[in-house]
Amino acid sequence: MQTIKLKNKPYLLAGYSMVGPLEGKGPLKDYFDYILKDDTLKEKTFEKSERKLLQDIIVGAIDKAGLKITDIDFFFGGDLLNQIVSSSYTARELEIPFIGLYSACATMAESLALASIFVDNGLAENVVAGTCTHFSSAERQYRFPLELGNQRPPTAQWTITGGGASVISKTPSNIRVSAVTFGRVVDFGIGDVNNMGAAMAPAACDTIREHIKNMGRTAKDYDLILTGDLGKLGSEILIDLMEHDKIILGKNYSDCGCMIYDKTERVFMGGSGAGCSASVLNSYIFKKLSAGDFKRILLVSTGALMSTTTSQQGDTIPGIAHAVELEFAGANKTNLKVNFSKDTNNVKSKKGGK
Amino acid sequence: MQTIKLKNKPYLLAGYSMVGPLEGKGPLKDYFDYILKDDTLKEKTFEKSERKLLQDIIVGAIDKAGLKITDIDFFFGGDLLNQIVSSSYTARELEIPFIGLYSACATMAESLALASIFVDNGLAENVVAGTCTHFSSAERQYRFPLELGNQRPPTAQWTITGGGASVISKTPSNIRVSAVTFGRVVDFGIGDVNNMGAAMAPAACDTIREHIKNMGRTAKDYDLILTGDLGKLGSEILIDLMEHDKIILGKNYSDCGCMIYDKTERVFMGGSGAGCSASVLNSYIFKKLSAGDFKRILLVSTGALMSTTTSQQGDTIPGIAHAVELEFAGANKTNLKVNFSKDTNNVKSKKGGK
Repeated sequence: MQTIKLKNKPYLLAGYSMVGPLEGKGPLKDYFDYILKDDTLKEKTFEKSERKLLQDIIVGAIDKAGLKITDIDFFFGGDLLNQIVSSSYTARELEIPFIGLYSACATMAESLALASIFVDNGLAENVVAGTCTHFSSAERQYRFPLELGNQRPPTAQWTITGGGASVISKTPSNIRVSAVTFGRVVDFGIGDVNNMGAAMAPAACDTIREHIKNMGRTAKDYDLILTGDLGKLGSEILIDLMEHDKIILGKNYSDCGCMIYDKTERVFMGGSGAGCSASVLNSYIFKKLSAGDFKRILLVSTGALMSTTTSQQGDTIPGIAHAVELEFAGANKTNLKVNFSKDTNNVKSKKGGK
Repeated sequence: MQTIKLKNKPYLLAGYSMVGPLEGKGPLKDYFDYILKDDTLKEKTFEKSERKLLQDIIVGAIDKAGLKITDIDFFFGGDLLNQIVSSSYTARELEIPFIGLYSACATMAESLALASIFVDNGLAENVVAGTCTHFSSAERQYRFPLELGNQRPPTAQWTITGGGASVISKTPSNIRVSAVTFGRVVDFGIGDVNNMGAAMAPAACDTIREHIKNMGRTAKDYDLILTGDLGKLGSEILIDLMEHDKIILGKNYSDCGCMIYDKTERVFMGGSGAGCSASVLNSYIFKKLSAGDFKRILLVSTGALMSTTTSQQGDTIPGIAHAVELEFAGANKTNLKVNFSKDTNNVKSKKGGK
């Protein structure tokens, strides 16, 4: 089955986020762990800046979990650069086993899902999963060099500079991973690379519907259903599509791309990039779940799987979405420590802090 | 731990391979399932040819396993094209959940390892793992358009046209997956993109050493230790490096890149590409293991993790190698059918056929 229920519900021990100056001015500014003043990170090229950003994020997450790099069994990661070089070169510095992934902007959920499965099945004690993007390296790889000063159509989104990483562990924390759903590739025929939200919304719909159905839940069972980077237009399309499936996304639905920037910024339909859901999950969502303000959320990172070559050769844009269900476990924190192997479904709504 | 011993030892139910005309003239020609007469596969671009090739391979493997596409729970795949578009667009046609991977030419072992873990832990009944490469699409993406007619240095390798896929299943067959090791990224400072074997050999050494140590074995416990695409020079470097670790790779060592082409072909150091170990594993190795001619082998697919951008920006080439240990299970075939959940270490050397 597409949805995997995690029998031991491993813990999200730490989440760490780092964003650029523009993202650091947005509504989530108080939740990010680190806001860059200089988005070059003193590197000579944007690609090396992105790499340094990911290194700092991964090390930051491990450090926040109170662990050393050598305590980490596996690094699950990927990014948007060709041949996921930000992740591979980060893995070179870490010197721990590396499981390289690619699902475009759905990478945070994909890496988190696989990481959780490894810990859930006793294959690892502590693993790290993460990704990031850099506005400037993404622009010049996927679209145009910044120096050209190209105009954007209104449906465009803004690749965020930033990202996040999660440490999944056997060690108890206030947040547990309860289930994951790996998405199918869905293509509704959108060919416009400046309309990613529309290209990804059908995949998000497919994954959310399957996850909810397979878990025997309704949309109301989640305090938050959170897509990765559909943006304003993509979110509206998703709400419409889900209505056809008789699933109503109400006030408990949001999109990381719509949350990360201030409304006054000229970012068109909102944020995008693998770092978008990675940074929002590992900042705002982590803190709200950890405090018990959210009891159960569904993270649905969304990816557009084209390349510049496929676009040039006339292909449409396939989308994918992977989902990870996270639950507040604060009320159970103490007695779970000695009881990891047993499933506990009696999470109370009592507020707990980390 | 880097090495994961599979408690249930899932089965390699079917292997399917397809190669281009040049590979089809080589020493393994009698083992491939399908040899293309036309390497364009009647597509208009090399990238679309590669995509069609992968589609045919994945469907071929599922068909050979006696299954329908809808019987497959997950597709694990990746390839060398930017944003792994061959795999993503193949997944679009399959309409089954897709776990996109990237570890360059180590993708066959990475996908096989994750696929085996899923089946081993009861997360899936049947999964497919595979990859392929196309000489012409790889050349123009990584090096030069073929039309330029560039010369190659003697250390160069030849990206194969071809690939393979494996169906991993709970359903018994003559081959079991007994353990996997995910590699670390290792970089010895090679910067020459025409000397991939040298760049990848240190990673292969690291992974083989760790796997053998973690399994409590010696190199002699394997009928074959098979690297992915180190080529002639890389293989010699690996043998030297392993001697430093007191591990002697003797007659039971080979490299897929050295096996796939006829010695009279002008392929310099031999074959390379993600499709190299994928096609050799799912043809010759599959048949030899299935017949009991090999009792235990270690597949070590090797990948070079650079991109054209990192090379242009002066970075050296990091390598990675993932390992999958496969065992002949023919003697146990019948009584294992009802006994999947129990570990069986009493594999006899009796010959069994599929």
